[in-house]
Amino acid sequence: MERPDDSTPRPGAPRPCAAVILAAGAGTRMRSGLPKALHPVGSAPMLAHVMAAAEALSPARVVVVAGHGAAAVTAAARAIRPDVEIALQQEQRGTAHAAAQAREALAGFEGDVFVLYADTPLVRPETLAAMAGARAQGAGLVALGFEAADPTGYGRLILEDGALTRIVEEKEATEAERAVTFSNSGVICAESPAMWDWLAEVSDDNAKGEFYLTDLVAIARAHGRDAAAVACPEAETLGVNSRAQLAQAEAAFQARARAAALEAGVTLTAPDTVFFALDTRIAPDVTVGPNVVFGPGAVIETGAEIRAFSHIEGAHVGPGAIIGPFARLRPGAEIGADAHVGNFVELKNAVLGEGAKANHLTYLGDATIGAGANIGAGTITCNYDGFLKHRTEIGAGAFIGSNSALVAPVSVGAGATVGAGSVIVSDVPEAALAVARGAQDTRPGGGARLRDKLAAAKAAKQG
Amino acid sequence: MERPDDSTPRPGAPRPCAAVILAAGAGTRMRSGLPKALHPVGSAPMLAHVMAAAEALSPARVVVVAGHGAAAVTAAARAIRPDVEIALQQEQRGTAHAAAQAREALAGFEGDVFVLYADTPLVRPETLAAMAGARAQGAGLVALGFEAADPTGYGRLILEDGALTRIVEEKEATEAERAVTFSNSGVICAESPAMWDWLAEVSDDNAKGEFYLTDLVAIARAHGRDAAAVACPEAETLGVNSRAQLAQAEAAFQARARAAALEAGVTLTAPDTVFFALDTRIAPDVTVGPNVVFGPGAVIETGAEIRAFSHIEGAHVGPGAIIGPFARLRPGAEIGADAHVGNFVELKNAVLGEGAKANHLTYLGDATIGAGANIGAGTITCNYDGFLKHRTEIGAGAFIGSNSALVAPVSVGAGATVGAGSVIVSDVPEAALAVARGAQDTRPGGGARLRDKLAAAKAAKQG
Amino acid sequence: MERPDDSTPRPGAPRPCAAVILAAGAGTRMRSGLPKALHPVGSAPMLAHVMAAAEALSPARVVVVAGHGAAAVTAAARAIRPDVEIALQQEQRGTAHAAAQAREALAGFEGDVFVLYADTPLVRPETLAAMAGARAQGAGLVALGFEAADPTGYGRLILEDGALTRIVEEKEATEAERAVTFSNSGVICAESPAMWDWLAEVSDDNAKGEFYLTDLVAIARAHGRDAAAVACPEAETLGVNSRAQLAQAEAAFQARARAAALEAGVTLTAPDTVFFALDTRIAPDVTVGPNVVFGPGAVIETGAEIRAFSHIEGAHVGPGAIIGPFARLRPGAEIGADAHVGNFVELKNAVLGEGAKANHLTYLGDATIGAGANIGAGTITCNYDGFLKHRTEIGAGAFIGSNSALVAPVSVGAGATVGAGSVIVSDVPEAALAVARGAQDTRPGGGARLRDKLAAAKAAKQG
Repeated sequence: MERPDDSTPRPGAPRPCAAVILAAGAGTRMRSGLPKALHPVGSAPMLAHVMAAAEALSPARVVVVAGHGAAAVTAAARAIRPDVEIALQQEQRGTAHAAAQAREALAGFEGDVFVLYADTPLVRPETLAAMAGARAQGAGLVALGFEAADPTGYGRLILEDGALTRIVEEKEATEAERAVTFSNSGVICAESPAMWDWLAEVSDDNAKGEFYLTDLVAIARAHGRDAAAVACPEAETLGVNSRAQLAQAEAAFQARARAAALEAGVTLTAPDTVFFALDTRIAPDVTVGPNVVFGPGAVIETGAEIRAFSHIEGAHVGPGAIIGPFARLRPGAEIGADAHVGNFVELKNAVLGEGAKANHLTYLGDATIGAGANIGAGTITCNYDGFLKHRTEIGAGAFIGSNSALVAPVSVGAGATVGAGSVIVSDVPEAALAVARGAQDTRPGGGARLRDKLAAAKAAKQG
Repeated sequence: MERPDDSTPRPGAPRPCAAVILAAGAGTRMRSGLPKALHPVGSAPMLAHVMAAAEALSPARVVVVAGHGAAAVTAAARAIRPDVEIALQQEQRGTAHAAAQAREALAGFEGDVFVLYADTPLVRPETLAAMAGARAQGAGLVALGFEAADPTGYGRLILEDGALTRIVEEKEATEAERAVTFSNSGVICAESPAMWDWLAEVSDDNAKGEFYLTDLVAIARAHGRDAAAVACPEAETLGVNSRAQLAQAEAAFQARARAAALEAGVTLTAPDTVFFALDTRIAPDVTVGPNVVFGPGAVIETGAEIRAFSHIEGAHVGPGAIIGPFARLRPGAEIGADAHVGNFVELKNAVLGEGAKANHLTYLGDATIGAGANIGAGTITCNYDGFLKHRTEIGAGAFIGSNSALVAPVSVGAGATVGAGSVIVSDVPEAALAVARGAQDTRPGGGARLRDKLAAAKAAKQG
Repeated sequence: MERPDDSTPRPGAPRPCAAVILAAGAGTRMRSGLPKALHPVGSAPMLAHVMAAAEALSPARVVVVAGHGAAAVTAAARAIRPDVEIALQQEQRGTAHAAAQAREALAGFEGDVFVLYADTPLVRPETLAAMAGARAQGAGLVALGFEAADPTGYGRLILEDGALTRIVEEKEATEAERAVTFSNSGVICAESPAMWDWLAEVSDDNAKGEFYLTDLVAIARAHGRDAAAVACPEAETLGVNSRAQLAQAEAAFQARARAAALEAGVTLTAPDTVFFALDTRIAPDVTVGPNVVFGPGAVIETGAEIRAFSHIEGAHVGPGAIIGPFARLRPGAEIGADAHVGNFVELKNAVLGEGAKANHLTYLGDATIGAGANIGAGTITCNYDGFLKHRTEIGAGAFIGSNSALVAPVSVGAGATVGAGSVIVSDVPEAALAVARGAQDTRPGGGARLRDKLAAAKAAKQG
């Protein structure tokens, strides 16, 4: 069963690796209908964070062990990595039991297998790489530990001469062992296929009657394989079991993302008030004001300015563009270079051309706006008829007067002008002028008479 | 004068209790025209926090001692508890003098009397209950103390064999007494009617010439009654005398409210950016994004999602509804199950039926919108004629085209459609189609000619 | 070279002073195209903070030493103080070299010269005044030091009998000197014209081949002049070399500004969420809700209420006015006493008269609104024709119906009424009634027929 040839470092050769991500937990303490693995951090399911950390190792295979809410967990995992494999854990019988569910999916796989946890979303790729490094130096199993500020409740990693000899649960620890502060994160990396046989030897002969992955250390050593430990900061091992811990994980993620943005040359006026998503991409020399929220899928190019109170998701902001304050970019918003999106403006599935402006109280949905066009305040694209969505096309340099409604499908040609307050229902050719509004009827003294009437009505009602 | 029969614990019998809340202070250091007791924490006057803490003991009587701004304080107190009694303190002559003003209002009352402070808004009901418990065990007077991190400036609670012997002001303390860190919060619970006689014995023979409530301990003991002390965390005793302390109290209140929400199963993406009111009620499995402000009177039902940058007061959000980002719900907003309120949308005194949607740039005031109705972007209910407010009624399943104005009083029947950009002034029957807009006039080349003219005007002006 | 007459304190006589502000640095670690001195803190360039601190001493002359981005730095400096003098530093050869560039500009100046740093924006006027005081007591040169929590990397101020003997760079310090924690901020105040000769003696005979200002201490003493040190809190000496440090400086500035506002009697519900600019002016008894951003040029008068999610720059808010939530005031907004600006409302270069209201979804640009006027929801001033901006004038007490567009240049007279949904293109006289909208055409059953048609279109498209 020993495969020493497989565990020998092969310098230069990429070592195949696989990830098994345990995501079956219900998360009772979350008090939620949502499976725990799908609770979001940085606008992405915790599962996505762990999959992203694993992905940095270019794993040949990724297996997600699902249980509670398996359908939703499966869908989320596939959206991230289409070839992910799903193993079902019908009962929750401990971490070793959970990991063992991946055996079939990884049958025949030779290399390093990481066991990760969907509810431990802060593990960094660098840490996993260090574990792979320790495997490459010959250990059959590598456990991830951390120096706990307060180790109470954690299993302890017991080292002898630098080698990991066992992981001992606190309640079974001797007094000397309990004094150890190097604690167990639960994450391991082990050689496959050997680990599957080791897993089969784990027993549930303990207080809770569960199969613990921690037993694998002693079992590997009983098979003559060395075990090693790698250390990471305690913060990386934060496990999420409650909404308060979810909020802690979110805070830790945001702190990392903010520091990374600053380091990359982004100005964050008030870093603590900017919220990033897992996949936010911001170029250097972008300025982000206070109170900005990035949902998933935001890409901001250099020199752009994101002003206070902006909410951006699924959107691409070109170089030099100015967004906000109080702007909302929804999925499919493409903001051209040097374009402006002002206050109380929403874009969805809409392209705003280079240098174009939509500065006030506007909704642009399912629309294409040409370069240099000016969209007046209060413009609305009427993109939905109650059944289907339709597109609005506005040509380069067009001028849309304020408070206009553009009833899609409709087009306004390049250089055309729409008069203020118009309801445009037919296409407007290039360079044309379209006006669609009622004629003004002004009655001298009519305002005063109306007021008298309304005042009388009020008096009558109150009297 | 001793009434030992009254102070004997009566196991099983509810002990009648009353609260005297001192709220006469001007709060000079607040630099404000508003009476100090009415400065808000969690969108409610500090007085309301103290009244709420007292209310948890089901007091038979509540007396508010008012002075500065008595009319406003009285109105605020009555809005919270209609049968509250108001005692006027004409001059500010110390805490004992203030408490004594309640004597007349509580004439004949037999039981426990709490003396509380409107500017100490963080005292918890559990703490008051512990004080009542100490009274029930025989003490004639119970003082609330706290272990001060830095006791400088506080009176000290001097205990002997567990009994409270006296409260000594710092400047009159011996060196040994000054080393005591168990400090006086000012809050007491004493037996009535005995305490009124004790109060009459308090002297103003001190540096400031004021009557101090702290003297009551020694006086009670001189009458042969025991005094006891109950301890609470220092944070509960925060007194508000400046805007900075008001901000501290607000922060402490918000920290409590956020922790309670998380504990109850609410997801707060960024807890530190969510602001609750004293009376906010949020069900489990609600998600609240960053930067959400709850004003008074918000009720959010399970599964609802409150997105970033939302402002909600006096509103009821049904299960599964989605609010925001950038939504404002004002008093009287009733959001049905699974309804959507999107960005830059305001509702006031308006019912949005189950599954109905108002997703963009809309004002719905004094309106009823039926289930499943679709309110287009830029819709405005014109509810005010300058004198009176009028209602808009929209039937189930109606479709209101974008950028429409509905001039109330007006109704749109179930299943009816309003064309985009319409100004609706007459009722629209069920299933009807109403359009009210100008015809489109499109002039080929007119846009180009207009631009030439405007460009010439600009050149003329600049030249 | 000694000019003892000039350095003798002249009690009662204002001592002339000048400021030299070093602002030539590129700020490589900022990773920015913007010169470092112009990166903003509190919505103002760091340079402006240092100039403001210097200005408190009423300096006769201010010289900015520019280098990288000199044109932009010059423009910014002149905008703050028109008579500022600019000295160019072509090469970056150390702080003494930089300071020496100001020699020509200050030729003939007799008095105190401060050398300050544009990237050290938190130095307070009180600290500079203390330095001037030390000069007045006879020191030829005064250096500003601070007790460093961790002095690693800083130069150390070496004192003997209270006199400053020299400033030693860490790498040249003896072990005893390295144990000194009193560290060098770089800021000095020296007597002019003597300092120019001292500067000429500074050598670049050191590891980096640069001219260090620190050498001036020893040189002054060699000329028989005393040197002294003044201490300030470490926080004042924060130097900004990276975006993270810029964010720290911003946080420190905001903390100061918030504390000052609270101290002045302003209620900040959540101080940590309010952002001030360097020049924000707020009167006592103003209430500011959570998440409010003040850009440059905001003045708020007493009793005004700024509600959550407001963004205010270049605007004046009169006493008792109510702004927000979700309001944006842009430069030139003048809000009269007791006026209301509500949600999703933007004002730019617009006067809102006393008691006037614009409560919902409105854009008022280049407009004057009379006292008591009511601007309905969704009102838009169409102020831009694509070439020029035009004004809208609305008289006192006018009533603008909701969802109206006012096509400027246009006026609505006092007491006039505009019907809801109107597009006003001609002036409306006083007391007149103007309506400009299409007639309503209601077709029974038309809604149902339209839906059937749209549903069929959807089915056809999907089939």
